[in-house]
Amino acid sequence: MPPVPPVRSVPSAPAAPESPPDAAQVLGRCRDLVSPVLSEAIGTLHPWLAEMARYALGHCEVGGAPADHGRGKGVRQALAVLGAEIVSGPARAGVPAAVAVELVHVFSLLHDDIMDGDTLRRGRPAVWKAYGTGPAVLAGDALFALAVETVALTPQAGAAVRQLTTALGDLVRGQADDLLFAERPWTGSDAVGQAEYEAMAERKTGALLGCALALGARLAGAPDRAVTVLDRAGRHLGVAFQIADDVLGIWGDPSVTGKPVHSDLRQGKKTLPVLAALGGAGYGELDELLALSHSLDEAGVRRATALVERAGGRAAAVREARRHLAAADTLLAGLPLAPVPAAELHSMLSALADRTI
Amino acid sequence: MPPVPPVRSVPSAPAAPESPPDAAQVLGRCRDLVSPVLSEAIGTLHPWLAEMARYALGHCEVGGAPADHGRGKGVRQALAVLGAEIVSGPARAGVPAAVAVELVHVFSLLHDDIMDGDTLRRGRPAVWKAYGTGPAVLAGDALFALAVETVALTPQAGAAVRQLTTALGDLVRGQADDLLFAERPWTGSDAVGQAEYEAMAERKTGALLGCALALGARLAGAPDRAVTVLDRAGRHLGVAFQIADDVLGIWGDPSVTGKPVHSDLRQGKKTLPVLAALGGAGYGELDELLALSHSLDEAGVRRATALVERAGGRAAAVREARRHLAAADTLLAGLPLAPVPAAELHSMLSALADRTI
Repeated sequence: MPPVPPVRSVPSAPAAPESPPDAAQVLGRCRDLVSPVLSEAIGTLHPWLAEMARYALGHCEVGGAPADHGRGKGVRQALAVLGAEIVSGPARAGVPAAVAVELVHVFSLLHDDIMDGDTLRRGRPAVWKAYGTGPAVLAGDALFALAVETVALTPQAGAAVRQLTTALGDLVRGQADDLLFAERPWTGSDAVGQAEYEAMAERKTGALLGCALALGARLAGAPDRAVTVLDRAGRHLGVAFQIADDVLGIWGDPSVTGKPVHSDLRQGKKTLPVLAALGGAGYGELDELLALSHSLDEAGVRRATALVERAGGRAAAVREARRHLAAADTLLAGLPLAPVPAAELHSMLSALADRTI
Repeated sequence: MPPVPPVRSVPSAPAAPESPPDAAQVLGRCRDLVSPVLSEAIGTLHPWLAEMARYALGHCEVGGAPADHGRGKGVRQALAVLGAEIVSGPARAGVPAAVAVELVHVFSLLHDDIMDGDTLRRGRPAVWKAYGTGPAVLAGDALFALAVETVALTPQAGAAVRQLTTALGDLVRGQADDLLFAERPWTGSDAVGQAEYEAMAERKTGALLGCALALGARLAGAPDRAVTVLDRAGRHLGVAFQIADDVLGIWGDPSVTGKPVHSDLRQGKKTLPVLAALGGAGYGELDELLALSHSLDEAGVRRATALVERAGGRAAAVREARRHLAAADTLLAGLPLAPVPAAELHSMLSALADRTI
């Protein structure tokens, strides 16, 4: 596999007064701040639904016995806390935003896994496989309602709930587009274009990251203009991370992704590396293989993977992810941000980009 | 089948200045006011999800061709409009509340039919049967988000969204209890008690009716005390209507309910008539039949139905429904309500009670 250059493309870090902050420390600090409040919120749910939420977060087994399974990185909650801090607010101002976006994130995992038929999540059975489809639907609904309630209890309830519902509407719309992409052909006039793909990714993944940053800032009293710019920056980050996920879905290590290798290719999922490859050279054989993707054997999947790479699909995807990271950075650089948390944000985003693409 | 006396138990109608209003006219007036706004809201959704919402409302076929299938009575939207009017506000003040509660109602039908495995809704295939489980989950999510957004765009956004999320939380909790009731035994120390059943019904059905009345009134500027009382009144109405649904689920005419006759008994659903019958006489044989409910033949179901009736289950359920209607009426009578819409509300509720129990 030819080496793909590391991304680290978020340029012009704001001048930090001390040594560069460590991304893991930043994520850990935000998690420590948010976790107890998130757990408390989940504890107000019906016990059965709370158990499913804890299972999804890796905090328990089926039946409720405590566990400590590999949890998510907590990017969304960190963005919300940093969103408050970069506009010179206290970290705690961003906590309700952090709790809400994490709840929405878990809600969307629960429901999306049902829609996508994904049986594994972070290496464990998805909630709908472990508890049943109906219960997983209901637990998702409960998390959704709890997220809205969390934001509705903040002093800026009206504007804050509107910020969240805009993101929720986009999240659903992006998921609808993604599901419908599966029915569309790989080539021809009905094929999914790159721009269309990126509009989907902005909604499906970007809207919630934008909401995290923007809502954290809003709750810390940021003016509307800054909130809007932060939302746009977060949306670019989302597109970048979605493309990174696509790259991992084809070339990622299953022990890291928790999913079978090449699973996206096997499922015939429309992902940017493949769409970009089809726009380039080497088109004929790849198209034939993709038409058969659901019945491809191991050799066929490996051949398709090699063709996507040879046609430049992987490099194009990485390039596009970098472009969105740079756009986010340009937007952030245009705001008068508090230097220490801005450096932390920059450090965290760079590390995430390095690791995932 | 012995006659069950009609309910018409909502006493002490406020003095109406003119001849008693016709319930169908009241429902029709409110529907005419709300429908265009509801349709406009649904039109903002992703077209695929909007189609599923219109299908659920009986406005189109699968594929989108216009249709006019028997729609729901529109009780929730009427309660929201009347909620605004009885506190002397204009009808239009209640319209956002009406749109929101209808959206939540359709959301809950979409998701509940998945959870309950109900394949028919109003005589047509449920959305999940017609479009698939994943799409039905997503369409429900979209309606949920749209409902919150609708309320978040009103001037009293903060308090109004909190009113809605409280109802949403209860709705989900009630549905969780209802699903778990299915796993519980009919008799013994783990059996579902009547009080427990009614607490479930208050959440699952009552919370949204209470929210309809209360939110309509709140948007019309009613004071907190009146809003709270209206919420409580609506919750009693919800318990009464849920019990009425239970009675229909056993003795109702399939051409009216749109469901197979005796379907609740066949599915072994915990309903108030059966729970009340088990608390009375004739217990032994009924318990044996219920233990076999999923495999009962036609004669077995008829026998169980007769035993529930003979043990007084039907009469007890009707009595309990009336008690809740009377409690709602007492609460309403304690408020200084505008007489004309209060008479309309009373008339509508009496007619609904007459028809369904």
